[in-house]
Amino acid sequence: MKPFIKKHLFSILAIGICYACTPMPDSSSSKDQQVLDLMRQMTLEQKVGQMTQITLGKFHENGKLDTKALRHAIIEKNVGSILNTNGSPLSVAQWHELLTTIQDIATKETPLQIPILYGIDAIHGTSYTQGSTLFPHNIGMGATRNTDLVSASTKITAMEVRASGIRWNFDPTLGIGRQPLWSRFEETFGEDVYLTSLMGGRAINAYEEDGLKNITAVASCMKHFIGYSVPLSGKDRTPAYIPDIQMREYFLPPFEAAVANGTSTVMINSGEVNGIPVHASKYYLQDILRGELGFEGLAVSDWEDIIRLHIRHQIAATPKEAVKIAVNAGIDMSMVPMDYSFYDYLIELVNEGEVSQTRIDEAVYRILKLKFDLGLFDNAYPEPAATANFGKPDYAEVALNAALESITLLKNENQILPLGKDTKILLTGPGAHNIGALHGSWSYTWQGDNEAAYHTSTLTLKDAMVAKIGEDQVISNATANYLDAENTNTAFVRNNANKVDVIVLAIGEKAYAESPGGIDDLTLASDQLALVEAAIATGKPVVLLLAQGRPRVISSVEPGVKGIMHLYRPASQGAKATMEILFGDYNPNGKLPFTYPKNTGDVILYDRKNSENFKESEPDTYGLGGFSPQWSFGHGLSYTTFAYSDLKLDKTTLAGEDSIHISVNVSNTGDRDGLVAVELYVSDLYASVTPSEKRLKRFKKVEIKQGNHTQVEFQLAKNDLSFINQNSQRITEEGEFTVMIGDQKENFFYQK
Amino acid sequence: MKPFIKKHLFSILAIGICYACTPMPDSSSSKDQQVLDLMRQMTLEQKVGQMTQITLGKFHENGKLDTKALRHAIIEKNVGSILNTNGSPLSVAQWHELLTTIQDIATKETPLQIPILYGIDAIHGTSYTQGSTLFPHNIGMGATRNTDLVSASTKITAMEVRASGIRWNFDPTLGIGRQPLWSRFEETFGEDVYLTSLMGGRAINAYEEDGLKNITAVASCMKHFIGYSVPLSGKDRTPAYIPDIQMREYFLPPFEAAVANGTSTVMINSGEVNGIPVHASKYYLQDILRGELGFEGLAVSDWEDIIRLHIRHQIAATPKEAVKIAVNAGIDMSMVPMDYSFYDYLIELVNEGEVSQTRIDEAVYRILKLKFDLGLFDNAYPEPAATANFGKPDYAEVALNAALESITLLKNENQILPLGKDTKILLTGPGAHNIGALHGSWSYTWQGDNEAAYHTSTLTLKDAMVAKIGEDQVISNATANYLDAENTNTAFVRNNANKVDVIVLAIGEKAYAESPGGIDDLTLASDQLALVEAAIATGKPVVLLLAQGRPRVISSVEPGVKGIMHLYRPASQGAKATMEILFGDYNPNGKLPFTYPKNTGDVILYDRKNSENFKESEPDTYGLGGFSPQWSFGHGLSYTTFAYSDLKLDKTTLAGEDSIHISVNVSNTGDRDGLVAVELYVSDLYASVTPSEKRLKRFKKVEIKQGNHTQVEFQLAKNDLSFINQNSQRITEEGEFTVMIGDQKENFFYQK
Repeated sequence: MKPFIKKHLFSILAIGICYACTPMPDSSSSKDQQVLDLMRQMTLEQKVGQMTQITLGKFHENGKLDTKALRHAIIEKNVGSILNTNGSPLSVAQWHELLTTIQDIATKETPLQIPILYGIDAIHGTSYTQGSTLFPHNIGMGATRNTDLVSASTKITAMEVRASGIRWNFDPTLGIGRQPLWSRFEETFGEDVYLTSLMGGRAINAYEEDGLKNITAVASCMKHFIGYSVPLSGKDRTPAYIPDIQMREYFLPPFEAAVANGTSTVMINSGEVNGIPVHASKYYLQDILRGELGFEGLAVSDWEDIIRLHIRHQIAATPKEAVKIAVNAGIDMSMVPMDYSFYDYLIELVNEGEVSQTRIDEAVYRILKLKFDLGLFDNAYPEPAATANFGKPDYAEVALNAALESITLLKNENQILPLGKDTKILLTGPGAHNIGALHGSWSYTWQGDNEAAYHTSTLTLKDAMVAKIGEDQVISNATANYLDAENTNTAFVRNNANKVDVIVLAIGEKAYAESPGGIDDLTLASDQLALVEAAIATGKPVVLLLAQGRPRVISSVEPGVKGIMHLYRPASQGAKATMEILFGDYNPNGKLPFTYPKNTGDVILYDRKNSENFKESEPDTYGLGGFSPQWSFGHGLSYTTFAYSDLKLDKTTLAGEDSIHISVNVSNTGDRDGLVAVELYVSDLYASVTPSEKRLKRFKKVEIKQGNHTQVEFQLAKNDLSFINQNSQRITEEGEFTVMIGDQKENFFYQK
Repeated sequence: MKPFIKKHLFSILAIGICYACTPMPDSSSSKDQQVLDLMRQMTLEQKVGQMTQITLGKFHENGKLDTKALRHAIIEKNVGSILNTNGSPLSVAQWHELLTTIQDIATKETPLQIPILYGIDAIHGTSYTQGSTLFPHNIGMGATRNTDLVSASTKITAMEVRASGIRWNFDPTLGIGRQPLWSRFEETFGEDVYLTSLMGGRAINAYEEDGLKNITAVASCMKHFIGYSVPLSGKDRTPAYIPDIQMREYFLPPFEAAVANGTSTVMINSGEVNGIPVHASKYYLQDILRGELGFEGLAVSDWEDIIRLHIRHQIAATPKEAVKIAVNAGIDMSMVPMDYSFYDYLIELVNEGEVSQTRIDEAVYRILKLKFDLGLFDNAYPEPAATANFGKPDYAEVALNAALESITLLKNENQILPLGKDTKILLTGPGAHNIGALHGSWSYTWQGDNEAAYHTSTLTLKDAMVAKIGEDQVISNATANYLDAENTNTAFVRNNANKVDVIVLAIGEKAYAESPGGIDDLTLASDQLALVEAAIATGKPVVLLLAQGRPRVISSVEPGVKGIMHLYRPASQGAKATMEILFGDYNPNGKLPFTYPKNTGDVILYDRKNSENFKESEPDTYGLGGFSPQWSFGHGLSYTTFAYSDLKLDKTTLAGEDSIHISVNVSNTGDRDGLVAVELYVSDLYASVTPSEKRLKRFKKVEIKQGNHTQVEFQLAKNDLSFINQNSQRITEEGEFTVMIGDQKENFFYQK
């Protein structure tokens, strides 16, 4: 076996395919004729302008729209795309006014009347429109194990973005969360590639399935291609090191699923992978993205990332060389976003023969094609009919359901939860009366930490608790600021514990986004740990509500607390959902979409290799520990209990392209009705690449009434048993496999 | 540019070369004729026996040598190699007796009279012989920046191992220390590839340069090939993920240097790299090791690692398949080490045609060739003349010098150090009277933590302090046990601080080796932090002596202490060396061979990329921090001060294969004589792979008397500016470079 030979031949083929399919506007019959017709009329300057994306802030002076600057951009610089807000959310009416002004200039004051493609970061809901509905961040959606909730919330986002007059959304994030220090962990669906592929695919589908001309759809953007989510240092936009075999096993599949689900655009990873900034990587941007994935849509840079090939990554000796490298590597549109350097340099580069006209045409074709597909040439303006889809009453219900199904009960010693509604409660902690902590990043502001930017109707945990059990039951000093817990709350806890039955602490992390959310230690902030210790020391039962974007280590205090609920970033209905669960009006069913580490230096994930797991396979003579997280991926308690039995496989040997049918009986053996996410894991016992301990391959959420049971059915086929081998090829090897559901296990063989 | 095409062609060539050079005993004229003659007489069983290595413990029953079992191994199972001790160190006489017994059986009771090749872990000195000299672990040797000390200490080790009757040493470790959680960090020369390549090369050279038949030499063993030192989880023998480009940039060069310096053997990494256990990797064991590095010596497995392809890595469905995979991948000798399964399976596999006779002959040729080279066929027995080289008085001086030049003064606020000899001192902490903490792993016992196994003459820090300044000056409660600092020392500090001028705390880590040294948090143990806090709280000046194998995070207490000395594992003369420096009889000059992190979640190394360093290139609007370690690689204070001036380059443009001459003036501007390691770093300003902030390229240790100065000269050439590009090739690109020595900087250009 010579891995590199096969890989290389494959790579040659891939490059060949890619080059062959480079759009040639004047010769390719499969191309959109109206795009080609338009392109024939365009000058180089007009084409390069289409590739230029500028941020809205560039057109603001003292907070007011500067139409002169806007005209300069669109008319003089031929700018084809604008993004972002100017720092604060706009109302639907304000968006309409803005976009009307923009499209007026583009379609009435320029020779070719090409409309502007406006793009926005509408993450977990329509982040930058006042009155929109915000849903749990992806990390919470991962916990729901309910893809229908992903579809429903994403469809609402599509409608509210479109209602705002915007047709391109930079969402969803498809990086998988395997580096818990990373500040964008909350934007991921968690650590599992199958879960991420499925949920990411559903999001893409919901955004685009109605057809991009429809007022219920927007162009989606799979991001960030590729390898962004696992910086070695944990800091945002710092180097990742990912061998090709792991890139294809863990990081590529969600993008494959996104392409299969029809995503129109891709945004590129700002960081470097294996020493090469992805914005400069022909291997990733051409060979893999175009050649292997067959993606035909628009590739946009991330914020300022072309110029950063010079100033940050130092692979280009000049800003101009940076433009040359990125465009030649495959970037179609530059999120410049603050000046016209990209535009000016790219025109020079084409004139100097450093970037080919063909490459420009390829990029511009993709951009214009998307504008046609989105119906912008039919009507570039905000669509009145779409406005009716904004802010419908039932959106809040979807947001509530998503929060309810995401919130994960991690600990419930002696059934401390649910609390009775007559319980006297001391509620404090930095997140107890803070809206930002429930929302996280991209929530009306970039950082999500501006309390004034939220709906006045949005409830905090304190508001929701008072609403649920009455003011008399709640003692709280919580204020809207994300408090310094040690200085203000510890004394309050000590002084008031004797007046209450239970202490509830809302801790975790304040809102943050991207690089500013960087941390130097995964441990929960020391002032918060001190608060928990003070609460435990009172002798009253302590319940933790963790509102946080990533798993902060709490092992030093966990043994002393009785109940722990993980809220993730539950967003607009998060406070209400929390109280529904805390007081037993809803039976929790969220499951962790990541492994919660017990120690900062012991981050091992659920799909670990056996060598990380030796405790189970060898005597633990030296106390080596093996896999011992705080809680594993898939952990999540209910107020009822479920039992698994009768795991049955319809065959002992799966052959060729056949399927194997699996059934299991799940019983609700407790005293409450409940939902449960039934998860099917598979182990490959021996393989030519060291197999994982287990991998999630199917899940299904079912409701079972107390005392009842239900049969849950799954099918698996060859591809579900596959992995990436040493030759970077996906294969399924013959051998024995174990299916695991709950505590049930059965083996079967696969043969070709 | 198509990276994978070039790489692939290169790979094909490499494979071609490798297969062409497979030893063919009967046809190759370049082979050693006496080996070929012997091989022609050998049965398959005799050949496979040569490939089998068994641990000495297998031949012990109730602590006594079981000659029946030994005879069974050598006579019945044709075993060719034995390793290890039976748990405790032997005297030279005991080793001689043991080896005489073994060689008697091998050379007098077997038909072919092939002597046994005995192998040992003599790490940082002759670990398993009573009365040997132990030197600072490699991490300390890295701090000396003095390759002559590496040569001297390694040569002594060679002589003392040989004097013990053993001719094969499993040393040196060439993995680079870029994962500070790893329990074998102390066995590395630190994080830098240049420093490791140079020092590792000098060690190999010292072991073997006199010729293997000489009584001053032993066969060395470059280890662990390859990628062992950076497990993602930090735990020993867990998966590493290393892209090919980084493997060649950081991890391969020390092995290239080792081969260039003539190492005779290689030991293989127990772990998996990129999902493939290295013991099963033809890519690493054939294409790279044999093809690219041209290594012709013996490849031995690490402990039990063949069977672990089945039980731990799960890439072999049976133990027998594990043997097949490993031998076919390129393992020549199996450190089985507890049974004859390897022997039995391999015979079956050859008879079944699953392993070729050619592969067996290749392996056996290498083993027998080494036995001939070592002179074992001339005289297999311990050499009386070698015994005279054991335990010479001047060895202690080399050990002392190595300790003196390694110990690194990290902090010296208000020149608290050196302490006057009339200072009244409170000395405590878990390491204050513990020998193991000064020695670490492989010190008479595997774990190094058996105090009874050390020379009775070995000083602890307390012993050495009393010897230096007198019993009356020292108040200490320290005992030989590595104490629980919180429970026993904290009260002692509080109660006795008022009697002293300074509190000296010996903290860090107790001795450990390999997997049992695993930790879950890089932070210093909480009881030790509490001890430091208690000492600071007394108001007396606090000095820390850090005896530890890796940088444990101390940022929570560092601001409160006045002086910090990093001892590493200074070994036999470590306590004396520490007191020489603490009390000013020696001026410290060690420099950190690694970056000491300030936080557990902020491990960024000195040769970071600029994207990890953005504070220096962009406004730090959001307090992102950038590179802010506790202390960087290269940090180390002196009791005098040095100033750099007049950095001069003899040309502004280096062309082709020419050299550039660099000189700098270094002045001792303080009031003491001193040694200083002058370090030359180079920055590549722009490159096709993101360049490092800086890279160490030369260093020279010089002594400068107070008030004097000296000119230090360096040469650089094309290869010093090279790096591994996207095609996995080492290249030097044209462009601008910066040379940095001290605070001096000058730029030059390279052109082809």
